[in-house]
Amino acid sequence: MGKGRVEAFSDGVIAIIITIMVLELKVPHGAEFSALAPLWPTFLSYVLSFIYVGIYWNNLHNMFHTVQRVDGRVLWANLHLLFWLSLMPVTTAFMGENHFAPVPVAVYGVLALCAAAYFILVVMLHRLHGNDTAFARAVGADRKEKISVVLYIAAIPLTFVNQWISVALYVLVAMIWFVPDRRFERQIEK
Amino acid sequence: MGKGRVEAFSDGVIAIIITIMVLELKVPHGAEFSALAPLWPTFLSYVLSFIYVGIYWNNLHNMFHTVQRVDGRVLWANLHLLFWLSLMPVTTAFMGENHFAPVPVAVYGVLALCAAAYFILVVMLHRLHGNDTAFARAVGADRKEKISVVLYIAAIPLTFVNQWISVALYVLVAMIWFVPDRRFERQIEK
Amino acid sequence: MGKGRVEAFSDGVIAIIITIMVLELKVPHGAEFSALAPLWPTFLSYVLSFIYVGIYWNNLHNMFHTVQRVDGRVLWANLHLLFWLSLMPVTTAFMGENHFAPVPVAVYGVLALCAAAYFILVVMLHRLHGNDTAFARAVGADRKEKISVVLYIAAIPLTFVNQWISVALYVLVAMIWFVPDRRFERQIEK
Amino acid sequence: MGKGRVEAFSDGVIAIIITIMVLELKVPHGAEFSALAPLWPTFLSYVLSFIYVGIYWNNLHNMFHTVQRVDGRVLWANLHLLFWLSLMPVTTAFMGENHFAPVPVAVYGVLALCAAAYFILVVMLHRLHGNDTAFARAVGADRKEKISVVLYIAAIPLTFVNQWISVALYVLVAMIWFVPDRRFERQIEK
Repeated sequence: MGKGRVEAFSDGVIAIIITIMVLELKVPHGAEFSALAPLWPTFLSYVLSFIYVGIYWNNLHNMFHTVQRVDGRVLWANLHLLFWLSLMPVTTAFMGENHFAPVPVAVYGVLALCAAAYFILVVMLHRLHGNDTAFARAVGADRKEKISVVLYIAAIPLTFVNQWISVALYVLVAMIWFVPDRRFERQIEK
Repeated sequence: MGKGRVEAFSDGVIAIIITIMVLELKVPHGAEFSALAPLWPTFLSYVLSFIYVGIYWNNLHNMFHTVQRVDGRVLWANLHLLFWLSLMPVTTAFMGENHFAPVPVAVYGVLALCAAAYFILVVMLHRLHGNDTAFARAVGADRKEKISVVLYIAAIPLTFVNQWISVALYVLVAMIWFVPDRRFERQIEK
Repeated sequence: MGKGRVEAFSDGVIAIIITIMVLELKVPHGAEFSALAPLWPTFLSYVLSFIYVGIYWNNLHNMFHTVQRVDGRVLWANLHLLFWLSLMPVTTAFMGENHFAPVPVAVYGVLALCAAAYFILVVMLHRLHGNDTAFARAVGADRKEKISVVLYIAAIPLTFVNQWISVALYVLVAMIWFVPDRRFERQIEK
Repeated sequence: MGKGRVEAFSDGVIAIIITIMVLELKVPHGAEFSALAPLWPTFLSYVLSFIYVGIYWNNLHNMFHTVQRVDGRVLWANLHLLFWLSLMPVTTAFMGENHFAPVPVAVYGVLALCAAAYFILVVMLHRLHGNDTAFARAVGADRKEKISVVLYIAAIPLTFVNQWISVALYVLVAMIWFVPDRRFERQIEK
């Protein structure tokens, strides 16, 4: 089975997710600069989520470069990842509209489930391709995923100590991933 | 006529359908965990519909693999399927917002019309390709479609006995289809 | 310049237009069948517009089959068509929510501008390809476009006599076009 | 790394941006022509933004024609451009709903940031391709970008003198760019 349509469909879904998030930036009431002030938490949470969705797109883009084929399991693992990503607009708005209150910041930790879903997708692809393939060599060490999941899971309870610790952890993970997943880039270059 | 653009257009429409459903998950009012509680029926109906739309996408993806060409009839049969699928976000929200009340659960049985539209599309493609082609051999027995339509049609009146019977039937059909349509996969492997 | 991305972009925009129209079908208040009754005008106008957008997509799909290349003028003529098509969700909802009142039915005649934009696109492509090409032979007689524009323009004032005359004319034009533009199909077959 | 998916993803995002802007054209209340009157500022701002997003799509379309490859930096520069473009629906609605009041017109000057992001993308692609390539020759003189940024930046404070000066400047820049970026067209023809 070819990977072309899986890429196209995922690109479509991610393009929509990243764009409809902006619909939560409600048009301000009033035509003064002061009308913009209440928007900053929504705007900041939009920026953070835009970067996160961008990171997922970049990594999927690189990962599928070394993918040779897909099967039913991979299709569902991919849809599973898209499902959790599709919740980003809601959790983003929840966090932004409540000015980074502890519970919404904890709920934003749904990111841990996106990361887990990404990991499952990697496992399914690995199983399909076998060891000793470009894909297997590329995924080799998956420290970044493991660190991310640990940090996300830590962020969820820490929000009840102080929510800014959790926000800082989310920003930290984004920074770790900001550089696209070099493993696949390196493998492509070979 | 090539099938490429039909695939691309269908992928686009399905990607949008699957993503705008999440817009019905309204951002909760309040920043407490208790604010999330009223969301669970909407969330569950979203999960069910996400799986359904995912199933349709998977099956279309596999089916078009064995398709050689399309004509005007196929284009309209495909649009007809997309039309009924496009109603999924509304029926999903109707069911979720009313906490799986009998009438909305019956209306969700519009799935029967999606299944019928899928069947019409298969017939149109079969007619175009003729018997004794990879496509014809792949569709051969269409037990799953027939069982699904029967279960959907049964689910609609049964909701007035007890709506959870109908919900159970919807979940059952989803489980039947969760495995992608193996007929096409098998044909592709040959 | 290749036509691939113009097709892909147009497919994307049309896929979104056809799908967001359904957002105007608001989730009914109440969980009784009677709650669905007020939806019928919105639903009917959605069906009509879905068919119209489907017709445009089909015709563009067939037309671009015989297209060899595009230039800046074609890109803008295409965007111009997409602009008028993008107004379909609003005019559809305006007509449906007001139960086919005369003014909204007249405004729905914006379809005349979609038809005019389609005609301009054909002219731009014709100019680029020159006579004596597959494209020129395919467009040859453009009776359907001319009849459509005349009927749309007639429909606009006639709504003030009786809006159902106009609605009947819209349905009539849709029926005329329901069969995909055979000119291009015929040319493709040659 | 291939450019195909970057093009496809950007096309998807831009197609969504250009289409969801129309969601800000709220369905008028009332079924009289007078109900349409309050829509004109929203409509005019929609037309202007549709043209702007169309210009960006056209220029990206032409630019990527001479692009040979992309890397991580280009992916992020492209996402950065898409981020600022994604704010167009909000700033458009803000300007339209407030009838081109000075502050919203100034905020619409976020266009300066889109232009800057476009410039950064050109720089990243230039660095990747090196001088003495089709891409480098195509971008050669970048007078249009520089003029645009100057005019946008001038428009922001001038809105407090008279907002129509700023609107006129936005229209002027759109007219300058209306002709697709000939540099890439010329290079493609060679």
